[in-house]
Amino acid sequence: MRSLDDLQTLLSRYAEQHPFPGQPSTLYEPCTYVLSLGGKRLRPLLALMGCGLFSDEIDRALPAAWAVELFHNFTLVHDDIMDAAPLRRGQPTVHTRWDLNTGILSGDVLLIYAYEHLLRVPEPQVTIELVRIFNRVAVEVCEGQQCDLDFERRDEVPLNDYLRMIEQKTAVLLGGALEMGARCAYASAADCRHLYHFGRLVGIAFQIQDDWLDTYGDPARVGKQIGGDILQNKKTFLVLQTLELAAEADRAALKEWLRTPATTPGKVEAVRAIFDRYDISARAAEEKRRLQRAAFEHLDALSAPLNRQALLRQTIEHLLERDR
Amino acid sequence: MRSLDDLQTLLSRYAEQHPFPGQPSTLYEPCTYVLSLGGKRLRPLLALMGCGLFSDEIDRALPAAWAVELFHNFTLVHDDIMDAAPLRRGQPTVHTRWDLNTGILSGDVLLIYAYEHLLRVPEPQVTIELVRIFNRVAVEVCEGQQCDLDFERRDEVPLNDYLRMIEQKTAVLLGGALEMGARCAYASAADCRHLYHFGRLVGIAFQIQDDWLDTYGDPARVGKQIGGDILQNKKTFLVLQTLELAAEADRAALKEWLRTPATTPGKVEAVRAIFDRYDISARAAEEKRRLQRAAFEHLDALSAPLNRQALLRQTIEHLLERDR
Repeated sequence: MRSLDDLQTLLSRYAEQHPFPGQPSTLYEPCTYVLSLGGKRLRPLLALMGCGLFSDEIDRALPAAWAVELFHNFTLVHDDIMDAAPLRRGQPTVHTRWDLNTGILSGDVLLIYAYEHLLRVPEPQVTIELVRIFNRVAVEVCEGQQCDLDFERRDEVPLNDYLRMIEQKTAVLLGGALEMGARCAYASAADCRHLYHFGRLVGIAFQIQDDWLDTYGDPARVGKQIGGDILQNKKTFLVLQTLELAAEADRAALKEWLRTPATTPGKVEAVRAIFDRYDISARAAEEKRRLQRAAFEHLDALSAPLNRQALLRQTIEHLLERDR
Repeated sequence: MRSLDDLQTLLSRYAEQHPFPGQPSTLYEPCTYVLSLGGKRLRPLLALMGCGLFSDEIDRALPAAWAVELFHNFTLVHDDIMDAAPLRRGQPTVHTRWDLNTGILSGDVLLIYAYEHLLRVPEPQVTIELVRIFNRVAVEVCEGQQCDLDFERRDEVPLNDYLRMIEQKTAVLLGGALEMGARCAYASAADCRHLYHFGRLVGIAFQIQDDWLDTYGDPARVGKQIGGDILQNKKTFLVLQTLELAAEADRAALKEWLRTPATTPGKVEAVRAIFDRYDISARAAEEKRRLQRAAFEHLDALSAPLNRQALLRQTIEHLLERDR
């Protein structure tokens, strides 16, 4: 398997070779813009690594990898509208820099182009399998986003419903990317399933880690203000786990805090004190670790030789150690 | 070829057999809702008729027909947001009945489900051809919608740009539906192309007819107020043709009228008087007739026997005679 830098280079070259049409520029400039905002391109890299587990011809997976990246950017553009987010990676979101209609329509065309890249795979049977995986995942991502929107309107959400929501909204796409990449290298159905579950479980672990970092992370390493989720009354793993475990007085106090505005003095400290009474930091870490172990059991079950697995293992382990 | 009623029954049965999932209901109820608003289902019927030209097994084209219908409804939901339209067929639009986010997300999932139905076609090579046609058309529809939005901000639009816009935004989907249906019956590439161009040309003719009806139609037969386009300052065929032909004084007067609010007294009569000085009604009718002739030349070139063509010919001729 080549290095991550090699894979990034392959991706960039593929992207350069397949630019959007020039016209209408009002439709395609926002597409190019959102793709240029950066990000680590984890999802398409996973597709390439999934292929590299079983083949030296990683190029095979480039159309699928790029389809996954376009799909991811489609969700970013539309989710930013739904979340009324003004910024992404410090830059104006598409609907802020242009307008609502541009956000809707350029998101739509990004989704259609994702399928267009899947058609670039030469073997019909592989293309069809890729569209099948892609669609299964895409529907789940929409369902997860809808559940996320629905949860915002609810006072309380069972922790399991939250975990299922993040699984659908963010985790299955990581699994799907790996599965699609492996499928491009003609991996067996069993290997494809193991990779899918590996990515899915890792994806849930990432979200729990993100929730943990936002409250307990080292500001210098996380690179943003700590406690943002608490200030914005987000229903995170920490909140929902606390609501399930806490005594009635603490439950009531936490729910009361989650109705206050972000400017309320002492909010972060007070909420964290409630979390701490139920050892929520350690519980989140343990849940993450449990998911990580379950994920890597799927890697252990792969038929791919260990030397081919090294890059994928190292990449994911590195990303899961950001809280150490 | 079976009757239109037979084809409608086939479609309804297919739709009943493939309902959306029950959950999350906040995502899928709006999808079911928009599909239930009625409409004549022209696009999926064209797909079935395209298949029926070459095969008795019309069922083959049902997944493609339904994909086209889902795609069309996806565009309706998102276009209604972009046009800030409160009503469709007298009922609240999705973003009005629910909210903006529901409109965006249920539109997205409608588009994904369209591809899902294309996967139900049993032969991989046919599925791939269908996705290819579908994507080509879908990208054009987005580009056309973007041009339409762009035109709204412009003072003047060349008539040819307008015709190209309506071709992309509405006409190519009619052509694509016929082409996809024919492809399901293993029609030759030449027959598929002829059907595509037939649908495309008919689609442009329909739009010119719609523009004409809105100003010159019989209110009793059109079923809505006459002059709505003029009141709303829409850049129709009539307006753009007039701007290209008129003397400078009339051009200036027309542009001035198109900056006035809908409530301006005498607006419809004044604008129509300018149209009439350049014989715009007859010019629109002639352009429609020209497109219709060009369209039917493509039908004449089909290898399908004439008796199989009867239903398609009658259906389209009937729809193109609404102004007689």
